Amino acid sequence: MYKVTFQPSGATVETTSDENLLRTAMRAGIHINASCGGAGVCNKCRIFLEKGKLKGDELPDGGWRACTSYALSDLEIRVPVESEMDRKALNRPLARKAASWMQSFGQQAVIKPNPIISKTVIALPQPSISDSISDLERLQRELAQGQMQGKTIEVDSQILKTLPKTLREADWRVTVSLMDSRHPDTKRLVRVEKDRNSSSHLAVAFDIGTTTISGQLVNLNSNAVLAEFSDYNPQVSYGEDVISRMEFAKKGDGLTTLQTKVVKCLDGIVDELCRRASTQKDSISLVTVAANTVMTHFLLGLETQFLRAHPYLPVATQFPPVRASELGFQLPEHVRIFAAPCVASYVGGDIVAGVVGIGLHKQPELTLFIDIGTNGEIVLGNQDWMACAACSAGPAFEGGGIKHGMRATTGAIEIVHIHSETYEPMALTIGGKKAKGICGSGIISLLAGLFMTGALDKQGKFRHNLPTDRIREDRDGWEYVVVHKDATAIDQDIVFTEADVENLIRAKGAMFAGYVTLLESVGMAIEDLERIVLAGNFGSYLDLEQAITIGFLPDIPRERFFFAGNTSLLGARAAALSKEVMKDMKTVAQMMTHFDLSENPRFMEHYVSSMFLPHTDASLFPSVTIQESDRPKP
Amino acid sequence: MYKVTFQPSGATVETTSDENLLRTAMRAGIHINASCGGAGVCNKCRIFLEKGKLKGDELPDGGWRACTSYALSDLEIRVPVESEMDRKALNRPLARKAASWMQSFGQQAVIKPNPIISKTVIALPQPSISDSISDLERLQRELAQGQMQGKTIEVDSQILKTLPKTLREADWRVTVSLMDSRHPDTKRLVRVEKDRNSSSHLAVAFDIGTTTISGQLVNLNSNAVLAEFSDYNPQVSYGEDVISRMEFAKKGDGLTTLQTKVVKCLDGIVDELCRRASTQKDSISLVTVAANTVMTHFLLGLETQFLRAHPYLPVATQFPPVRASELGFQLPEHVRIFAAPCVASYVGGDIVAGVVGIGLHKQPELTLFIDIGTNGEIVLGNQDWMACAACSAGPAFEGGGIKHGMRATTGAIEIVHIHSETYEPMALTIGGKKAKGICGSGIISLLAGLFMTGALDKQGKFRHNLPTDRIREDRDGWEYVVVHKDATAIDQDIVFTEADVENLIRAKGAMFAGYVTLLESVGMAIEDLERIVLAGNFGSYLDLEQAITIGFLPDIPRERFFFAGNTSLLGARAAALSKEVMKDMKTVAQMMTHFDLSENPRFMEHYVSSMFLPHTDASLFPSVTIQESDRPKP
Repeated sequence: MYKVTFQPSGATVETTSDENLLRTAMRAGIHINASCGGAGVCNKCRIFLEKGKLKGDELPDGGWRACTSYALSDLEIRVPVESEMDRKALNRPLARKAASWMQSFGQQAVIKPNPIISKTVIALPQPSISDSISDLERLQRELAQGQMQGKTIEVDSQILKTLPKTLREADWRVTVSLMDSRHPDTKRLVRVEKDRNSSSHLAVAFDIGTTTISGQLVNLNSNAVLAEFSDYNPQVSYGEDVISRMEFAKKGDGLTTLQTKVVKCLDGIVDELCRRASTQKDSISLVTVAANTVMTHFLLGLETQFLRAHPYLPVATQFPPVRASELGFQLPEHVRIFAAPCVASYVGGDIVAGVVGIGLHKQPELTLFIDIGTNGEIVLGNQDWMACAACSAGPAFEGGGIKHGMRATTGAIEIVHIHSETYEPMALTIGGKKAKGICGSGIISLLAGLFMTGALDKQGKFRHNLPTDRIREDRDGWEYVVVHKDATAIDQDIVFTEADVENLIRAKGAMFAGYVTLLESVGMAIEDLERIVLAGNFGSYLDLEQAITIGFLPDIPRERFFFAGNTSLLGARAAALSKEVMKDMKTVAQMMTHFDLSENPRFMEHYVSSMFLPHTDASLFPSVTIQESDRPKP
Repeated sequence: MYKVTFQPSGATVETTSDENLLRTAMRAGIHINASCGGAGVCNKCRIFLEKGKLKGDELPDGGWRACTSYALSDLEIRVPVESEMDRKALNRPLARKAASWMQSFGQQAVIKPNPIISKTVIALPQPSISDSISDLERLQRELAQGQMQGKTIEVDSQILKTLPKTLREADWRVTVSLMDSRHPDTKRLVRVEKDRNSSSHLAVAFDIGTTTISGQLVNLNSNAVLAEFSDYNPQVSYGEDVISRMEFAKKGDGLTTLQTKVVKCLDGIVDELCRRASTQKDSISLVTVAANTVMTHFLLGLETQFLRAHPYLPVATQFPPVRASELGFQLPEHVRIFAAPCVASYVGGDIVAGVVGIGLHKQPELTLFIDIGTNGEIVLGNQDWMACAACSAGPAFEGGGIKHGMRATTGAIEIVHIHSETYEPMALTIGGKKAKGICGSGIISLLAGLFMTGALDKQGKFRHNLPTDRIREDRDGWEYVVVHKDATAIDQDIVFTEADVENLIRAKGAMFAGYVTLLESVGMAIEDLERIVLAGNFGSYLDLEQAITIGFLPDIPRERFFFAGNTSLLGARAAALSKEVMKDMKTVAQMMTHFDLSENPRFMEHYVSSMFLPHTDASLFPSVTIQESDRPKP
């Protein structure tokens, strides 16, 4: 760990030899012009070494390229005049990420494996003429004398097909898989195999998002994640969003097409997971899925037309387990799919899985859980009660409907700082590659930066005639050029438009109105919130100050924020590992009170009030100190 | 009802205008030569009308053809000299059939319908925005408030696919099908349909024999049999008996072939049953099957190779219900197949179904149940205990291994009487058609008749030089010509050979040794038997006296005998109608003590002793009065 002091501000921060100095500066609140995202292309991020030793690229005209230089000792760095900010801007606090939920609470959330399908080794007595009961009865007798005493055992008829050979090849010592039924006294015998080592008891957990599908292969004995893989949801070809896909599902065999597509995609992910973990599909005991209500319906081949129309009824919200092969999976016959229960048409199994995944239902603290997907679902509550709502925020914070928006993958600009006088950007991309677009956290920091520097006014309009050519009027209206064409990976300027800003204000307005309406509905206010947990795919960077500055997150003490990543997948994995978690999900889905905001007049009022940066009511954002009066007048 | 007196014997018997006079004479114990079986071809069955009125065919040379003549009033008939018997033979008692079990006890066996799948009409409250739970939850809520209170309800995932449309098309008033699970507190929701009249709750019951498959379509509400249809088991192409089929099943995809064939046949029978009853497959709620252990394994696609080899283990003896569609049936997805439980490799679900079908397990009388199929399975017991065994009798009494043996269908000679001096036969065929062969009851009466007239000795050898050319030596040894070529439907002499006799003696010996061994094993004797119930396909005629005469049935009072027909199908139908019957079958299968006769030295002793007509120990057959001394000496 080395200490780095940036001059002339004198700001000091710690770094390691793994973090390039551009990132270090970002964390320290130091602005350094940087266009290419850290790809070592634009050469704008020049710094000078005053003291200490570093490795990296010296530039021909003197200085070092910050984005490719790393500390080898304590350093004193001078930021050149072209990057330097005025005094005022130096008050900018350290860029602050929400604490990792996993790092803060992960330990207490470690799940003791106790999956709904358990494997047991059983040794049967050899048959003889004086003990000549059938193979199945022999197995059942042994089970009834052992751990299954007093239980009713149902039998999957499929197991009979291979039972005699398995028993004999295994010399009457076999591993049986028993699945819990709905009734606590009933178990279901779903598989009999030759005794193998315990590493063959695996599960696949899926999060099926409208856009992305993520899977993890989990060892049900050791709790270890053996492999992870994501792919785009192929249903995208039939509609970007759930509404257009439901429209498609209504016609002809549209539903079947959508189901077939997603099953094929999941099958492909399973193959890839097995390849990566060097294991066989045969080792998979079960599959869990967390998805929104529409995606769950599509996966199970269920009609969605009544989900769309008043009063918005799902076919089911608690789904019986279903054989994978029945849905068309290329998986062994014993494998069942367990889908996380949903709450209502717009609050799905992904939210339920998320809430249970982070353990909200076990904690006394009043928590606001925010999943910034397409709909912006939110849950408010604690171990005793929960209320939920979908804010219809749209996909802007996932990059949807944003001109150069993209998902948080390599090449996405994940954070931007704007120079308060020159309006030059300091942009960092995921993976330090040339920029391809801007992901959620980047979009938030752009909006916040442009607002704080006064480039955008409260209404979200660009100020004209500022001393920069990055703000310009194009065919589609006013925009800010984040990266010029030559420093991108896409051979065109990456811009951020007034239309993007409008979309974002609507989206953050819907979210904020959602928080307030939900709190109000239960007689509470923002200051009562003890924790806010952010779920979603934001990349590693979401600057809390910036998110609060634009009014996307409420202005409460920063240590109450936690970032939890893909909580839907987290919950799906937890469900695979533990039947108690599955049960908790059912309970949580049933205990959640769903508020339909679209029917709520208070929501509309709050929404309209939230259509400013950060909000019409400045008292809601006491720590957002940028005032009109502070702003440069053009 | 008319009275008929046959002269010169003076024997009098009642008849109806539906029964031809040849049959009437047979019942009266009057011999009339008749070769063609009653087809009106041979013209040998001439009688003279002394008094009264009849309709029929007058012959050109005087007299009437008995086989095509019917009483229209009381009659006095004279049997011509060529048919007349000597005095001694007139002692022959009336041909006596075993009493019909159904007629004797059918009333008390009428089953109160209470099938394992019940249908209930449920009216759901219309959904609204204030009551917007999912379709499935709405249904489950209503069930939980109604008759299913306190029960656990499992849900077939398939029903979800059509649930939303069904509920709405039915205007929220639906019929649900609930199936009992193994655990008494659990029900399974297997179907939801629009409310229809109760006649749509049907079942198909099957008896799958090695040779023949019989099906009945049953109304589960009214108990009515709507249609009945039989077909040959198409697996015959792969082997006549179970052993050769098991051999075939071992190779390549032999098992799959056998399964596919039988399923296709059952599908065809279902189609025919529905056609005959003018109903749709859609109305079928469940299918029950009773079959021997091997046939059950083939149907379910289960390995039979371990059934063949020591210690003869079935894969299972209690079979979990299995979805018809999973076995390849062209039946709706909700339909399950319930197979009757088996006892052991050679005592199958057909026997268990038979025993339960006749209610043996509910009666205090010591009963011997005899199913004369391929194996000759027997059950001894009453409501308190049961012992069973397979006698390995072979298929002789079903016509198997008999030169002109055939099943009891149209054209089969079902009863024969032999003239004690001329050795001319009086043969009746099923349906009064030209003879094609000889079925079980015909075979027994031939053997008995030839033995009683002295044409066969105790060892089953033909006496030579008797005054008839019907007994002759042919290429294959000595034989008796039952019907000459010109009066048959097969353009060849129908004969009964010494090899046939040998087979029959072995078969009846195995059966008899089985009865005695089983009785001995439980410390009892033949005279303790209170009832003997005969199951099997014998046609309408099995003459008890004849069957006892050859030592096939034990010599106990005739009123203790009952004929019950296809008891396997009877049991399968009872199981379809009532879950209590299904439960009884499980109990019965488990309570039956199975004796493996092939390992029993006493059985071998009894078998050897039984290889005479009727038996080496004449004291076992006190009422069989034909003694060597009475016989004509050639």
